[in-house]
Formats: sequence, structure tokens, C-alpha cells
Amino acid sequence: MPIVRVEMWPGRTHAQKQELARVITEAVVNIAQTTPEATIVIFQEVAKESWAQGGVLASDASK
Amino acid sequence: MPIVRVEMWPGRTHAQKQELARVITEAVVNIAQTTPEATIVIFQEVAKESWAQGGVLASDASK
Amino acid sequence: MPIVRVEMWPGRTHAQKQELARVITEAVVNIAQTTPEATIVIFQEVAKESWAQGGVLASDASK
Amino acid sequence: MPIVRVEMWPGRTHAQKQELARVITEAVVNIAQTTPEATIVIFQEVAKESWAQGGVLASDASK
Amino acid sequence: MPIVRVEMWPGRTHAQKQELARVITEAVVNIAQTTPEATIVIFQEVAKESWAQGGVLASDASK
Amino acid sequence: MPIVRVEMWPGRTHAQKQELARVITEAVVNIAQTTPEATIVIFQEVAKESWAQGGVLASDASK
Repeated sequence: MPIVRVEMWPGRTHAQKQELARVITEAVVNIAQTTPEATIVIFQEVAKESWAQGGVLASDASK
Repeated sequence: MPIVRVEMWPGRTHAQKQELARVITEAVVNIAQTTPEATIVIFQEVAKESWAQGGVLASDASK
Repeated sequence: MPIVRVEMWPGRTHAQKQELARVITEAVVNIAQTTPEATIVIFQEVAKESWAQGGVLASDASK
Repeated sequence: MPIVRVEMWPGRTHAQKQELARVITEAVVNIAQTTPEATIVIFQEVAKESWAQGGVLASDASK
Repeated sequence: MPIVRVEMWPGRTHAQKQELARVITEAVVNIAQTTPEATIVIFQEVAKESWAQGGVLASDASK
Repeated sequence: MPIVRVEMWPGRTHAQKQELARVITEAVVNIAQTTPEATIVIFQEVAKESWAQGGVLASDASK
């Protein structure tokens, strides 16, 4: 604890995930006063075909 | 907000997801009195090999 | 399966949840071709103090 | 209900998932006093590239 | 990792959660070959008013 | 999108959630190249009675 879960569209590089994990962990440790070892960050990719806003799939909206 | 998440087995077509997103968004907007723009729908597929009921994986149960 | 999860702000009545459950289940059954008995709908309330967009908590934004 | 969700790294075999589903369902039924039919177990694999502890992705940490 | 999440209706005692955590952790460690320290179990209660099957809230169905 | 979900023990103040939301959103916008408006942060508190590591509830472990 804490567990941070980041849902985003595919396409982020390994380097971007590395930096996100590092910066989010740092923020959580400093602000929520926990330890890095206790902080887990999980990335979950959601395809644009599987994500809708306003009732329209993002894969259709971006056309 | 609201965020609606639909977990289901693979196999639904793009057209089915389009219609599900449209109809669920409409229902949430009308009944929960929010706006379409504020309503997110996310589909997550769970393979039958990764889903069990009664202690048996669905991939085994359907044999 | 399917499992539908609706995250929304508190304040919806029992009657609204009843109707949301009924209409969402009907949509899922008709469009994704499953049975009502196999369809689970779960409501999760998220307080405005625990939800941020644009980096601002909704409880602050609505002031 | 109950719904049990197991997030783990990839690499577990079908046989391991079968046994996990069986044993977890048995535990939940006996301890939480429910029925096997009401108990759902879902497995979700998270790649080591998408999981960080201590601010470091598991795919980097295990190097 | 692994992270196990158990969603269930309210009403389970502290002792039941203790035993569920112990037995599920043991099962995951033995079957998925991980360590107890790496295994997290989270319980989430869902009220019967917030859970529907067959389009009917469990709080209405049990009447 | 992205949706960031932070699960942590209760006890963080409104000010800590404000700062977490602000800093995490900033990190996600800068690193994952999205907009603040598209970035949602949700906080979910998990009681120590409902969270176990090593098979022991955190409420028992901290005794």
C-alpha cells in the first residue's frame, strides 16, 4: 500500500512507463508519507476500440 | 464520472461494442442525470481460461 | 459474466439504481447475447473529495 | 458474489490456474459461507513491464 | 504481486477475514510459487443495494 | 483517459489528496503527453482491517 493503477491508451514507451513509475512513486512517498518499497504502480493499457466517451468508441471518434 | 466498466468474454464485435457504448451511455445519462461527455465506458475482455465459476475455469466447463 | 461496474458520485436513489441495473442488464443481454442471470451489475460510489479531473478535486471544483 | 480477482505476472500454466480457482473457491465457500456457484474467480496477468515497486519496473529490477 | 481482491457482501467478521487472508495467501504461495510477503489480499464490501444480478438489486431480490 | 486510481489506507487529509491529484496529474500530462482535462484521479481508501500482506491483516500486523 499504496497501489496506484494507471489506465491509458497503448503507445507509451518503456521509457515513459519507467519515468511515470519513478515520478508517481516519488509523489506518493512524499505527499502520502509512505515508503517506496510499499508503493506499487501498475499500468493497464486500454485499446481505443474498448474505450468510449459520449457513447462513441475512441477508435471511431478519432477518425 | 460516471465510469462504466464492462468485463466480458472475448468475441464481441466492434459493432456490438459500439452499440453497447451508445445504449449504456444513454441509460446512464437519462437515469443518473449526467451528460454524455462525462460518461466513460471501458470494455475489458477476460479469456475463458482466466475466469472460473464453481471452482472450474470456463474453458474447462464448456467442454 | 458479463460483470458491469458503475462508478459514480453519491446521491443516486435506490430507485435510480434499480432502473440502471434493469436497463443496463437488458442492454447487455440483448446486444452481447448473454442471459440476465449471468449478468452482474455493481455500483460503486466515489465521493467528490476522492475524484479529481484536471488535477483538481471535484469537491473543490464545484465551489 | 463473492468475486475474487487475482492479478499476477504471466507464466502460470493452465493447471496452476485450475488449481488456484478450485482451492480459492473452496476457501471462500467454507470460510465466507457461500456457494461454489456464487463464487467467481478472475485471473488478470500484468506484465513485468507494467508493474513497478519502489519506483522501478519489475522488468528492470529483475535484470 | 500477486494482488488478490475479494468483493463480497458485508457481514463477514474480522475472524473470517483473518482466515480468508491466511488460507488464500497460502494457496497462492503454494500453487503460484510466490512468497507470502509478495502476496497482498484486499477485501472490498459491496452492499446488497449496490449489487444486481438478473437486473434486480440483491436487496430487492432477497425480500 | 488516463484514469489513475490510488488505493491507500485511510487517514490522508483533504490537503494531501489535493496535492496528490495535482502532482500526479502534472506527471501524467508531462510524461504521457495528454491533457489535464483528460486525466482523472480517483482515491480509494482501504481499511487496515481489509488489507493483508503475508497472510496477516494490516490491522493485526501493526499491533
